[in-house]
Amino acid sequence: MNTDSYDNIRAIEWRDDCLYLLDQRLLPHTEKYIALSDVVAVAKAITDMVVRGAPAIGVTAAYGVVIAVRSRYQQEGDNWHASIEQDLHCLAASRPTAVNLFWAIDRMRKAMETLPEGDPTAVLLTEAIAVHKEDIAANHHMGELGAGLISPSSGVLTHCNTGSLATGGYGTALGVIRSAYRAGKLSCVYADETRPWLQGARLTAWELVQDNIPVTLQADGAASHLMKQGGVHWVIVGSDRIAGNGDVANKIGTYHLAVAARYHGVKFMVVAPTSTIDMQLSCGDEIPIENRPQEEVLSLGGQRIAPAGVSAWNPSFDVTPAALVDAIVTEKGVVHSPNAAKMRELMSSAG
Amino acid sequence: MNTDSYDNIRAIEWRDDCLYLLDQRLLPHTEKYIALSDVVAVAKAITDMVVRGAPAIGVTAAYGVVIAVRSRYQQEGDNWHASIEQDLHCLAASRPTAVNLFWAIDRMRKAMETLPEGDPTAVLLTEAIAVHKEDIAANHHMGELGAGLISPSSGVLTHCNTGSLATGGYGTALGVIRSAYRAGKLSCVYADETRPWLQGARLTAWELVQDNIPVTLQADGAASHLMKQGGVHWVIVGSDRIAGNGDVANKIGTYHLAVAARYHGVKFMVVAPTSTIDMQLSCGDEIPIENRPQEEVLSLGGQRIAPAGVSAWNPSFDVTPAALVDAIVTEKGVVHSPNAAKMRELMSSAG
Repeated sequence: MNTDSYDNIRAIEWRDDCLYLLDQRLLPHTEKYIALSDVVAVAKAITDMVVRGAPAIGVTAAYGVVIAVRSRYQQEGDNWHASIEQDLHCLAASRPTAVNLFWAIDRMRKAMETLPEGDPTAVLLTEAIAVHKEDIAANHHMGELGAGLISPSSGVLTHCNTGSLATGGYGTALGVIRSAYRAGKLSCVYADETRPWLQGARLTAWELVQDNIPVTLQADGAASHLMKQGGVHWVIVGSDRIAGNGDVANKIGTYHLAVAARYHGVKFMVVAPTSTIDMQLSCGDEIPIENRPQEEVLSLGGQRIAPAGVSAWNPSFDVTPAALVDAIVTEKGVVHSPNAAKMRELMSSAG
Repeated sequence: MNTDSYDNIRAIEWRDDCLYLLDQRLLPHTEKYIALSDVVAVAKAITDMVVRGAPAIGVTAAYGVVIAVRSRYQQEGDNWHASIEQDLHCLAASRPTAVNLFWAIDRMRKAMETLPEGDPTAVLLTEAIAVHKEDIAANHHMGELGAGLISPSSGVLTHCNTGSLATGGYGTALGVIRSAYRAGKLSCVYADETRPWLQGARLTAWELVQDNIPVTLQADGAASHLMKQGGVHWVIVGSDRIAGNGDVANKIGTYHLAVAARYHGVKFMVVAPTSTIDMQLSCGDEIPIENRPQEEVLSLGGQRIAPAGVSAWNPSFDVTPAALVDAIVTEKGVVHSPNAAKMRELMSSAG
């Protein structure tokens, strides 16, 4: 879809009438694609984090709708409409926080409303591919916009994985880092390892190694110590849902970083397509935060690290208030010091 | 040494003329003591973190001096003085940040100055046992003092391990949590897992399970999210070295917590014996911060988590400025809102 040398990784591929997902649970040690051809398996792959990252979940769900409709049409012919809602519900129940999931299902539902007679698969597949391609294009555009905010010789710190693996391709926050690096603006890139799932150590590091972008991993707790030393000028993160006032839900640890960034005078950039913005919610308190299994904290790579008899708290996301955000970068433009009025203006613009 | 039901764990034991260390690298899965009878092995055990925690390193070093002198006396008779300095240097070079190491060696060196004729082992062993017993007594006293600062129904969050494993016994910050729990003051105890070495998940959790004190583990990045929800009233930590102005070096991630605590109006308590206070240093910038091997971040329990080609930054400690500390609890008393004048007053008091 793109010949950019910084855009070779695809976590999601549609080929041979089948959806292939790169199993992100096995990275960086094993690169294995899983073929999916029924909607329950697609939903389970999202729940189990075979694929993760808000935009990637959205793209996967779009293809999941194609798979669901194709299967219903094969089984029930023109009556497929009657039973499709339960499949869409199954997809929507896979994870609660990333609004891109619901956005993609809604977009596919709209495409269903204007279908020609007969097999709906081809038209819906075209729509899902459009969702995928538009996400990649949005990421490249956001990459340029975000890089434009960064001064030469800047140090940046990112959290979680927001690259090709978390999106249709190229990445949101990591797309900005790719673009800024290519423009020669970055003196160093730091990545939080991002416990408990280690998206930084396993996924972000793997992507940047493939791009030959030097990256230094750190324990999540080291961030304030790093900022105090003055080597970091921007914290750059993605988002799973942005509320109508600019409050940002993202991977647990993001809010901890935002508090530290403000304390140290480090700027804080959120990079997300407008499919991540949920204007239905007036503020971040209304964003549902997924609590994932305790086992993700108590173990690591299947290896138990904590003693028996201990419990763990494992919220997968936190909410950073808009007041701590310096810029939200979307494919429609940049919102500086976001608030409700600016978010409404962004969303009503032609983009 | 103490019959307290909350004080049954001993990381350091002297028996049968030998030093036994509980190998903390293997906890919580395996409880194995290592017997040490030469000083190079004692220094290596400190470097390799068989034993860790500033007060425990101090106690271990005191016994290490006994082992060194005994060996030199056996080999060289009354000429043992001539060669002992190289052993003390070997011990002192084992780790750079915890000042208790140098404090203990200095105290043992003073005991060497007034030895009677003949075999010095018994007198020096008595001194090392005194160092050990005094540390335990200090911890119990600090436990009471620190618990006295905590209001009923408080939630607390701790970082790293500061319990019996990190000290002669009972613990510093974890001693305060033990005392406050026994006094019925705690509504909940949260522990950071404390990457990269997982002292919280592996050691603090293990100690609290044995004491039947309920504890909830969390990823280090979750701290601000927890504080925002209002369930935590005190962050309670230990220290590896406190400068003369009250700046506090402690496990990496502590400063990140202190910044977050101040932002959320959560109080911040440091618990450390006066052997941790280094009045030679005017501020925290002068404290040497150990950088440990990258491998501790890139791997976990011998299992590689990051891809090849990635580097990691692994500072073992950070420095929290005195301005972010609400109270330093020592065996000589509590210093509120520490500064240089208050620290001098504390150290010159009879205590």
